[in-house]
Amino acid sequence: MPILGQNQYGKAENRVVKITRDGATHHIKDLNVSVSLSGDMDEVHYSGSNANVLPTDTTKNTVYAFAKEHGIESAEQFGIHLARHFVTSQEPIHRARIRIEEYAWERIDTPESRHSFVRQGQETRCTQITFDGSSWEVVSGLKDLVVMNTTDSEFWGYVKDRYTTLPEARDRILATEVSARWRFGWSDDAKETPDWDDSYAQTRKHLLQAFAETYSLSLQQTLYAMGSRIIDRREEIDETRFSLPNKHHFLVDLAPFGLENDTPDGAVYFAADRPYGLIEATVLRDGCEAKIPADLTHL
Amino acid sequence: MPILGQNQYGKAENRVVKITRDGATHHIKDLNVSVSLSGDMDEVHYSGSNANVLPTDTTKNTVYAFAKEHGIESAEQFGIHLARHFVTSQEPIHRARIRIEEYAWERIDTPESRHSFVRQGQETRCTQITFDGSSWEVVSGLKDLVVMNTTDSEFWGYVKDRYTTLPEARDRILATEVSARWRFGWSDDAKETPDWDDSYAQTRKHLLQAFAETYSLSLQQTLYAMGSRIIDRREEIDETRFSLPNKHHFLVDLAPFGLENDTPDGAVYFAADRPYGLIEATVLRDGCEAKIPADLTHL
Amino acid sequence: MPILGQNQYGKAENRVVKITRDGATHHIKDLNVSVSLSGDMDEVHYSGSNANVLPTDTTKNTVYAFAKEHGIESAEQFGIHLARHFVTSQEPIHRARIRIEEYAWERIDTPESRHSFVRQGQETRCTQITFDGSSWEVVSGLKDLVVMNTTDSEFWGYVKDRYTTLPEARDRILATEVSARWRFGWSDDAKETPDWDDSYAQTRKHLLQAFAETYSLSLQQTLYAMGSRIIDRREEIDETRFSLPNKHHFLVDLAPFGLENDTPDGAVYFAADRPYGLIEATVLRDGCEAKIPADLTHL
Amino acid sequence: MPILGQNQYGKAENRVVKITRDGATHHIKDLNVSVSLSGDMDEVHYSGSNANVLPTDTTKNTVYAFAKEHGIESAEQFGIHLARHFVTSQEPIHRARIRIEEYAWERIDTPESRHSFVRQGQETRCTQITFDGSSWEVVSGLKDLVVMNTTDSEFWGYVKDRYTTLPEARDRILATEVSARWRFGWSDDAKETPDWDDSYAQTRKHLLQAFAETYSLSLQQTLYAMGSRIIDRREEIDETRFSLPNKHHFLVDLAPFGLENDTPDGAVYFAADRPYGLIEATVLRDGCEAKIPADLTHL
Repeated sequence: MPILGQNQYGKAENRVVKITRDGATHHIKDLNVSVSLSGDMDEVHYSGSNANVLPTDTTKNTVYAFAKEHGIESAEQFGIHLARHFVTSQEPIHRARIRIEEYAWERIDTPESRHSFVRQGQETRCTQITFDGSSWEVVSGLKDLVVMNTTDSEFWGYVKDRYTTLPEARDRILATEVSARWRFGWSDDAKETPDWDDSYAQTRKHLLQAFAETYSLSLQQTLYAMGSRIIDRREEIDETRFSLPNKHHFLVDLAPFGLENDTPDGAVYFAADRPYGLIEATVLRDGCEAKIPADLTHL
Repeated sequence: MPILGQNQYGKAENRVVKITRDGATHHIKDLNVSVSLSGDMDEVHYSGSNANVLPTDTTKNTVYAFAKEHGIESAEQFGIHLARHFVTSQEPIHRARIRIEEYAWERIDTPESRHSFVRQGQETRCTQITFDGSSWEVVSGLKDLVVMNTTDSEFWGYVKDRYTTLPEARDRILATEVSARWRFGWSDDAKETPDWDDSYAQTRKHLLQAFAETYSLSLQQTLYAMGSRIIDRREEIDETRFSLPNKHHFLVDLAPFGLENDTPDGAVYFAADRPYGLIEATVLRDGCEAKIPADLTHL
Repeated sequence: MPILGQNQYGKAENRVVKITRDGATHHIKDLNVSVSLSGDMDEVHYSGSNANVLPTDTTKNTVYAFAKEHGIESAEQFGIHLARHFVTSQEPIHRARIRIEEYAWERIDTPESRHSFVRQGQETRCTQITFDGSSWEVVSGLKDLVVMNTTDSEFWGYVKDRYTTLPEARDRILATEVSARWRFGWSDDAKETPDWDDSYAQTRKHLLQAFAETYSLSLQQTLYAMGSRIIDRREEIDETRFSLPNKHHFLVDLAPFGLENDTPDGAVYFAADRPYGLIEATVLRDGCEAKIPADLTHL
Repeated sequence: MPILGQNQYGKAENRVVKITRDGATHHIKDLNVSVSLSGDMDEVHYSGSNANVLPTDTTKNTVYAFAKEHGIESAEQFGIHLARHFVTSQEPIHRARIRIEEYAWERIDTPESRHSFVRQGQETRCTQITFDGSSWEVVSGLKDLVVMNTTDSEFWGYVKDRYTTLPEARDRILATEVSARWRFGWSDDAKETPDWDDSYAQTRKHLLQAFAETYSLSLQQTLYAMGSRIIDRREEIDETRFSLPNKHHFLVDLAPFGLENDTPDGAVYFAADRPYGLIEATVLRDGCEAKIPADLTHL
């Protein structure tokens, strides 16, 4: 008989918005929460018996109720509340994984309102909390953060084979859409949790600065610079993983029109969609184990 | 024989990025340019003769060459250069319409680099320039600007019929993703053009402030407030058109869990995807003619 | 005071699925319905008074209730029921426009079930019904229908200017993603309506056959062939409008690798995303007025 | 010093179309190919030395050249050619992973053309070939296959806790968008490869039939039925993995309008977008090891 392997289930993409009021000043928390549970679930697969199944509808209700009962201090803290609840309250559930995307809002600049907001930025903050009843794993990160260096990037000295036509480049645009995840060392309820929001802000800053300040001979080098900067500066983080599409900007050949295209007064590029180079790697603290999967997945 | 009606053609979505260098300080212009030409084009439809057809490939080349030859002072100015060129250089072309999306970048905050950038914001600035050889029409705007008021919005006193179940609301969230277009009064080469970039910045500011400062009894009222604020404050603009999806946020019923959900310490909402209310209208200067189509189209 | 121009409102994208049972054999109707109403709506914009406003929530309820009360014989017939209702039951509503997308399903091929289905095809059937209390306009069509001719397409004899680099082509791939709309002559309640479903099936067939059978000297010629075939063969249709992106397939230059790429045993192409040519035109019955807007909009 | 962990790189989403001609009858292969290489790549990350790096541009060229040199018998066979080439021709490359999506086309039904096609179906066939120089792993599958059973689905007998409000269901719609992967037992060059195209067609058929023929007490049970049917009927496959979003169809409450919504003449449902249940599991042959990751990733 075919065997059941790893399995998980839950309600995905619960869109929860919480508004709190501090007098006339309002605050928004805007999350997309996905629940994934696993445990003693063989029977529901083999026979359809739901005796051990907490319905995905209930996991949805729990997300909304917890937003009220426990508040949303940070995405990480909210995920920890949820994961603990599912594993400790339901005997058949042995593991809970909570994934959360958080969307940022900033105040509209007007003296007359403290309750008006505009969605901020392109990138999405994300986190994944996993709990097995005794140990925690928290992996946070971001995606859709588009960055560009307009110089200080080269690419040469590479292998040439029969299929190589690329000319070497001594000054090119380097642009990418960063998808990054970082795993916290914290795993034990007995230890104090990091300050999740401050950690996010600092880690994002280091990532951006390392991108900006690295004179790049390859996107791999820039990736390592970003990862090692985070490991060096943020002791609460043990491991980073990056997926960096190389968003190619090709210098347009304007010679047929009698125009030079690399004079100092401005260069014109074609921003290509596909194909794109894709550079992925893990950078981690010496002595730590790599746990983030090679393929980053969205929610 | 079936008759040929309105027709137009050109290359769409030319992604052009121009980098200029002011010493160590670099500047980015990042555009998506679509060209649409019409004129004496019956023959190519009836017989396939391309004798009057400037290939779409050539319109693409022209976009890139013009970015070098004329620079990109603003999306509007760049579109004017292109439209004038096509209509005046090719006898069979009687009308050119150039649509441009512009993507904003901001500098990465680091002392060591003046050539590192991060994509800014969610909204996209857009413009459409139309030229028929004698008269200009410039319609600019933005899309994907997501805004929210967390209070000062009501909805009641509406028509009830057999199919009405909605309870009246005295305090609700009002959120929308603004798609707006505004038409400039400028149409004559002999008159001075507006300062396109300043006009955009000011118009966007007025739009946001009108959204924030309007105590709303309906999304239609808020729409009119946004449009009339622009008409009142920006004399270069004669007409505005808005498409405002009502991004519903439903208060979650937490009563089954023994929780109240409208206490002052925080209310929990479900952010719905579909269906959504869709409110569309034109607001224009008294005495001006409405020219922006009822259905806003993206690029 | 700024003036209110054209305005409309309603609930967009109501996803309604109706299942009917004919013994063990089930049938699916799967629609996405958008309602847009206009009329005597100045006050809601100027003062926020909702006294004339039938809430968008009510329009949503009406869609679902009508699916039960009137059934869904075809998307067009369903839209006619809805449009008539809004205009005739609410005095302030003077015009209703109903847009519907329909998604096709086919039966899963198995002897044991008559109630199992798989979503069919890529294209979406769509219709727009407009009623002003006396006269009807029905525009149906399809979108996302991707087609390709692998030969019998040329492109040469076009205008050359300073910016032209494209070599002439005597044998190229012609591929496009058809977005088409066709307007029915029917407008009067006193006349019999077309057989909407049969008309759709026949029109789609003619469109595809005209694409396949036209030896093409330009995509414009192919467009005209598709439109005129429909006008010639379907007397219930007075006007067609097409938006045809030219999905470029570029022959790859394999010469650097010592390979010829146009030998009879197979040619290799790069399928490009952007930019793309965009060819748009109306083809209509002699003596009829063009009413479909130049820019086709989705839902 | 921070340590480099798992890393890989290559060109993603190379869109390659190959047309072959058998007299007047043409054939299309339409693929999206992503290359990912790993091996002795520490230096490029640490110092930026590209001495071991075959550029992603070269991997792109290789894809196009191989389409000519080796043809595209099947996506799997094409991926095997590519993976073998990268690992055996470049000493620093120790592992190659090729991911391919294949898009299906069918002939347009017309007597006059054997070279006209329309894109078929919604689902995408996909495969991933991994080679480490000695052993192969081939995981094929499909995604975006939307299916629905309009009856023979129940859901009851589940756990109730404080947050449960869902009523039990004795007859509901069961709809999902199947993402499935299956791993072949073949791993050794010395053994004969499966007939990849026939295996795909048969596996897809079994998957659909198991979906249609299973009287479902839970989506988990249906998932297991699909996986075990494949394992039972296709001896070349050792492991399956499914990711099944539960596309909820909610019976609309029409009681406020005096309508019953569960009579035999047709029931009306609201097709919801988010949130959705998400059911994921592996089903494998007894004695085999599970190797497909828990999170299926696209391309």
